[in-house]
Amino acid sequence: MAAEPADRVYCGLICHNVSKRHNIGTLVRSAAAFGVTEVCLTGSRQFNTFGSHGAAEYVSYRYFPSLQECCACLKSERGCRIVGIEITDDAAQIQEHPFSGPTAFMLGNEGTGLSQGQVQLCDTFVYIQQYGAGTASLNVSVAASIVLHHFALWAGYQERSRHGEKFDVGERPMRRAPRGTVPLTEGEMEAERQRRAARKACDGGRLLDGGSPESSAGQELFEAA
Amino acid sequence: MAAEPADRVYCGLICHNVSKRHNIGTLVRSAAAFGVTEVCLTGSRQFNTFGSHGAAEYVSYRYFPSLQECCACLKSERGCRIVGIEITDDAAQIQEHPFSGPTAFMLGNEGTGLSQGQVQLCDTFVYIQQYGAGTASLNVSVAASIVLHHFALWAGYQERSRHGEKFDVGERPMRRAPRGTVPLTEGEMEAERQRRAARKACDGGRLLDGGSPESSAGQELFEAA
Repeated sequence: MAAEPADRVYCGLICHNVSKRHNIGTLVRSAAAFGVTEVCLTGSRQFNTFGSHGAAEYVSYRYFPSLQECCACLKSERGCRIVGIEITDDAAQIQEHPFSGPTAFMLGNEGTGLSQGQVQLCDTFVYIQQYGAGTASLNVSVAASIVLHHFALWAGYQERSRHGEKFDVGERPMRRAPRGTVPLTEGEMEAERQRRAARKACDGGRLLDGGSPESSAGQELFEAA
Repeated sequence: MAAEPADRVYCGLICHNVSKRHNIGTLVRSAAAFGVTEVCLTGSRQFNTFGSHGAAEYVSYRYFPSLQECCACLKSERGCRIVGIEITDDAAQIQEHPFSGPTAFMLGNEGTGLSQGQVQLCDTFVYIQQYGAGTASLNVSVAASIVLHHFALWAGYQERSRHGEKFDVGERPMRRAPRGTVPLTEGEMEAERQRRAARKACDGGRLLDGGSPESSAGQELFEAA
């Protein structure tokens, strides 16, 4: 995927239990526009980004078997605060830019918002003020986009070049996994190689599948999840 | 529809040539959330707000036969500046809050943005900075929502009350037209009554349709547009 500018403050987007494909597609498009470092998916390596308008190919994804592992890893590796996007009593208004450094935003489900389990994993919360009587909440991809835009403003990301009425789109990165699947990391590929070697030894060499871990392990891991 | 608080700066949203129903639905939901005074539709009185989650019933709509009439009316009646949401060379960054009073925002089509005709009707433009290489532009409903949120912040709208993790939704207003149809104004109803009376006189009393203008004229006007 596109190299992350070294001087950018880390911004992660944790998608757990977002269920509608056009919302995920719009989220990924906004993540690409607002310089999100990586989109973190939990539970399944597969996702459907209908409506991303090609932006899905440019975003870095990361897969975690569970939400707990995701948050623990982002904290230990990146020093992230986990910030839930939710209307809670102690949530800060997004326009206050209540940020202090590397941040991963946690999204809830379209219908029910953040679950209790998600809430407990968050360090703080932000929300977006509303002013009318007609809706209890915003669309999840709209809410996330507003938050990501404010974070980028706070972090002082450098604006992308543009020509005419469009921002410049970079060369499409090489795809490292089937469309809509989070690619395996080097560590996961190595673990998969070792698993296969061990199975081959157990089977006395009867394993006929000569496929590389890159080509099939993603699906196997998904099925095992 | 819900009464507009008297002290609120006017905020209009001109939807012309937005073509995808889920985008219109999301736009209307954000319009409801961010206190938009009215959503202005041109060309057709009919619209599809799939995905508004009920917010469509709370928004005030206004119909104009043409975009030119829409802009002229908003300027003369409301003293509006017409602000295009588009990445133009002279567009101001949305976070600068380049507003001075009553404002109507003009949206473009999902694929092509603002047309030349739309551009010529705009007084000024705002755009949203992007920071990544993966997309030339944002989803139209995301872009509009970010702009509406900033306008509401600038205008100092009063925050809606909330309970738990939801903003309070008001009592559903009485529907004045079939779902997905802009209701007739008093003036349009009066004009329709006069048209019917004139036709009745011409027909020598043979007009058998006893329906009220409210119940059928919307559809007739739509067919005539």
